Amino acid sequence: MMRQFLQTVLERPMTRNFILGVIVFNAALMGLETSSQIMTQFSGLIQWLDRACIAIFIVEIVAKLIVQRGQFFRDGWNVFDFLIVSVALIPAAQSFSVLRALRVLRVFRVLSAAPRLRRVVEGFVTALPGMASVFLLMAIIFYISSVMATNLFGQAFPDWFGNLGRSAYSLFQIMTLESWSMGIVRPVMELYPLAWAFFVPFILATTFAVVNLLVGLIVNSMASAHSEEEDARTDDYRDQVLERLSAIETRLSEAQGKNSTTK
Amino acid sequence: MMRQFLQTVLERPMTRNFILGVIVFNAALMGLETSSQIMTQFSGLIQWLDRACIAIFIVEIVAKLIVQRGQFFRDGWNVFDFLIVSVALIPAAQSFSVLRALRVLRVFRVLSAAPRLRRVVEGFVTALPGMASVFLLMAIIFYISSVMATNLFGQAFPDWFGNLGRSAYSLFQIMTLESWSMGIVRPVMELYPLAWAFFVPFILATTFAVVNLLVGLIVNSMASAHSEEEDARTDDYRDQVLERLSAIETRLSEAQGKNSTTK
Amino acid sequence: MMRQFLQTVLERPMTRNFILGVIVFNAALMGLETSSQIMTQFSGLIQWLDRACIAIFIVEIVAKLIVQRGQFFRDGWNVFDFLIVSVALIPAAQSFSVLRALRVLRVFRVLSAAPRLRRVVEGFVTALPGMASVFLLMAIIFYISSVMATNLFGQAFPDWFGNLGRSAYSLFQIMTLESWSMGIVRPVMELYPLAWAFFVPFILATTFAVVNLLVGLIVNSMASAHSEEEDARTDDYRDQVLERLSAIETRLSEAQGKNSTTK
Amino acid sequence: MMRQFLQTVLERPMTRNFILGVIVFNAALMGLETSSQIMTQFSGLIQWLDRACIAIFIVEIVAKLIVQRGQFFRDGWNVFDFLIVSVALIPAAQSFSVLRALRVLRVFRVLSAAPRLRRVVEGFVTALPGMASVFLLMAIIFYISSVMATNLFGQAFPDWFGNLGRSAYSLFQIMTLESWSMGIVRPVMELYPLAWAFFVPFILATTFAVVNLLVGLIVNSMASAHSEEEDARTDDYRDQVLERLSAIETRLSEAQGKNSTTK
Repeated sequence: MMRQFLQTVLERPMTRNFILGVIVFNAALMGLETSSQIMTQFSGLIQWLDRACIAIFIVEIVAKLIVQRGQFFRDGWNVFDFLIVSVALIPAAQSFSVLRALRVLRVFRVLSAAPRLRRVVEGFVTALPGMASVFLLMAIIFYISSVMATNLFGQAFPDWFGNLGRSAYSLFQIMTLESWSMGIVRPVMELYPLAWAFFVPFILATTFAVVNLLVGLIVNSMASAHSEEEDARTDDYRDQVLERLSAIETRLSEAQGKNSTTK
Repeated sequence: MMRQFLQTVLERPMTRNFILGVIVFNAALMGLETSSQIMTQFSGLIQWLDRACIAIFIVEIVAKLIVQRGQFFRDGWNVFDFLIVSVALIPAAQSFSVLRALRVLRVFRVLSAAPRLRRVVEGFVTALPGMASVFLLMAIIFYISSVMATNLFGQAFPDWFGNLGRSAYSLFQIMTLESWSMGIVRPVMELYPLAWAFFVPFILATTFAVVNLLVGLIVNSMASAHSEEEDARTDDYRDQVLERLSAIETRLSEAQGKNSTTK
Repeated sequence: MMRQFLQTVLERPMTRNFILGVIVFNAALMGLETSSQIMTQFSGLIQWLDRACIAIFIVEIVAKLIVQRGQFFRDGWNVFDFLIVSVALIPAAQSFSVLRALRVLRVFRVLSAAPRLRRVVEGFVTALPGMASVFLLMAIIFYISSVMATNLFGQAFPDWFGNLGRSAYSLFQIMTLESWSMGIVRPVMELYPLAWAFFVPFILATTFAVVNLLVGLIVNSMASAHSEEEDARTDDYRDQVLERLSAIETRLSEAQGKNSTTK
Repeated sequence: MMRQFLQTVLERPMTRNFILGVIVFNAALMGLETSSQIMTQFSGLIQWLDRACIAIFIVEIVAKLIVQRGQFFRDGWNVFDFLIVSVALIPAAQSFSVLRALRVLRVFRVLSAAPRLRRVVEGFVTALPGMASVFLLMAIIFYISSVMATNLFGQAFPDWFGNLGRSAYSLFQIMTLESWSMGIVRPVMELYPLAWAFFVPFILATTFAVVNLLVGLIVNSMASAHSEEEDARTDDYRDQVLERLSAIETRLSEAQGKNSTTK
């Protein structure tokens, strides 16, 4: 039947590699599109090739939908592919520049198509929940600091701390240590000489939180890297020792039993 | 009695969640207060809700005080809550902007109210004493460098190195590597061409100290992460092996004893 | 024969140290060449000495080629030495400044001549393949972001995002957090107020990828540092215990066999 | 005798604490000296107290010299104390500002006087030799890059790359990522559009070397932290197991010997 035929086709390594090739080719096309010189000459050809690529992606997704039916959307990678390809079908995509720029995200399909990259990204994603508490803590520090900065410096420096959003952006910049002193804090300190008492603790707190995130990541991946292979061998060895010890013990009790029965 | 009744109420999960909800609601209120547009329209409502939140916090703390009495201030988190809520009661708080800004710290009560965040912060705090020596070393380096910078460059660059405080701030900026060269050291070197001989070693020393802090943190948390569960299993196994070996030995000596007595 | 004679000469520690000395001497010469004051006086002498150094290097490489023949180019370090010395022989090297600057790379021969440095560099190089996936991921993120930045901001900011190359350079600068906000993103946000929605996730993603690279490096070198000596001892001990236990078992079964046959 | 009396006095905890107190007091004095306001009023008093402190330090060092004689200079900390106190005795110290600034280094005596800080610094110093290879590699990269940068950009940008020293300083700034792009590389690229091909690899190479330094530090201190206590226990356990196993074996062979002689 058609469904089984599609499944065998989709599972062939050749199909995978073909899709991967189309993604890379499409990525190159999008690179060429950024050059106005090339676009004036080959605009028609490039757009035609681009549409061909999209058509192939749509055919692939429809085929997967037919094969997997309801299960399709249970796999995060399928949802990812589906959303990314959908963006290309929004009609305004050709005229409105932001949507056109979003089309480039299609190249991220290479993450779902190449198994090695897939594993790297999955490694990143599985590391995230362990850091949820620290992220939440960071969010709270940012929210409180933004409200305080808006209240304290909002009127005098509306560009930097005029509302919550601007304050959050400026504090993010300060957290990355970019021009925090010469660009932001020194000018603020000319009006409010004690402003350092707000910003220096903020830098120390966020840096310390980031450092703890990093330490947590290292410790977690160290622990998981260590345990798997090595621990399996250790457990194996220990089971063996304990088994042999009990074998010796049973033999000894047998021997003693015989000895006592002999007498 | 009232004390026992209060205790059961305070220990209910519902009470905890209600307080947590009030904190989050109060945080949102404070966010709205930063928008002058919203304040012109709903200023009265928001202030009334804010006072309601404070009232709830005060009731909670008074209840805890009644229940725990003298023990209340032994828990660091209670002291933390008490201080944060007290700030809201200082009368000048409504007019003077710094105190009004400090009111936002109330949102940090979420740290004591949510157990997961509590543990993260406690993890941070317990990590601090192990780093005390390095912090002290940093403080000494900063003090000496500030005195030297003030002596050397104070007269020529009063804004940056005019007194101990300014020097310490500028050196903190240099330690974070923010505009250290283009912003500070290159201008200084135009007057004192050998100024790099002061600043470059300072950067190397403080960076090295920070790196050692980081390494210490990683090694500590690695060691503590490793030891708990895994070591318990190892100790268990070792005790078992040694016990069984001595059991075999006693059996063997018993057997020998019998054998020699038989003959 | 000549080939064997050359081999013994090349393998002498004295030859190694002599070559190392010539490299260091040549490095010092090149340092002197940067001073126009010294060059006006001793230009002739320095150029003569420089040519003498090159001559020695060529003799060494030719000797190695004679000794090792076809195997010469199988060792990466030999290829490295060969390429670096070849640059000096390009005739234009004396007039064209870029090629003259490349001659300084000859000093890198010290890496292949000093065994300790050789090992450090080999350590770096062996660490690279394990990071290939993350590097590939970084390249994809950079490519996609460059195309997007060129599409979105290319027309308004041609200096920073005018073509793929400029965008990639600007994004590299942003990834290193250098002036990302005050220098690039704030000016861009004056025209496109939502530009932060592109740059902040870019910073977070690349920083996170870099952090993962670092964590991977640490975990890898930790694992390899741990396993070698310590694991050998552990394996040794375990083999010993298991052997002895089975020896005891066979003795016991022999004893039982004898006992049963006696009766 | 006097020598023994001095030794007992120097070894008393009270003497140690007194010296530590004098160092801290002297540090505070030097802080006060930076304030011109205080100096106009109390200049005489402060200078008198400062001389008293120096006198105490000299007495301490002379006492140590009498007690330890030739062994005095074998301890690095003694040499450190000796040099630091000597600076105060150079007569020009009062007039020439650099030497006056160097007097502040006296506060570093707190490192040798407080045992905990002493251990931290010793930990830093013992970590250095393990990183010697990477430091040497860094030095080579810096030297080669400085020569190249001077050759390539020296004439056009004499302030940044005019001679080897300036190039090294600018490259150090670039390595710390401070204003590397907006401040240095973008202006250079206006004249030499391919300058990024020099600077970007330089940044990648030095950052990678720094990361490897960091990884090496972590792995080293992890290994040494791990081995001491834990490994002692493991070795202890292993010795015990092997001893008991051989005890069982000798018993078994004894038993077998008896059995065979009985028959």
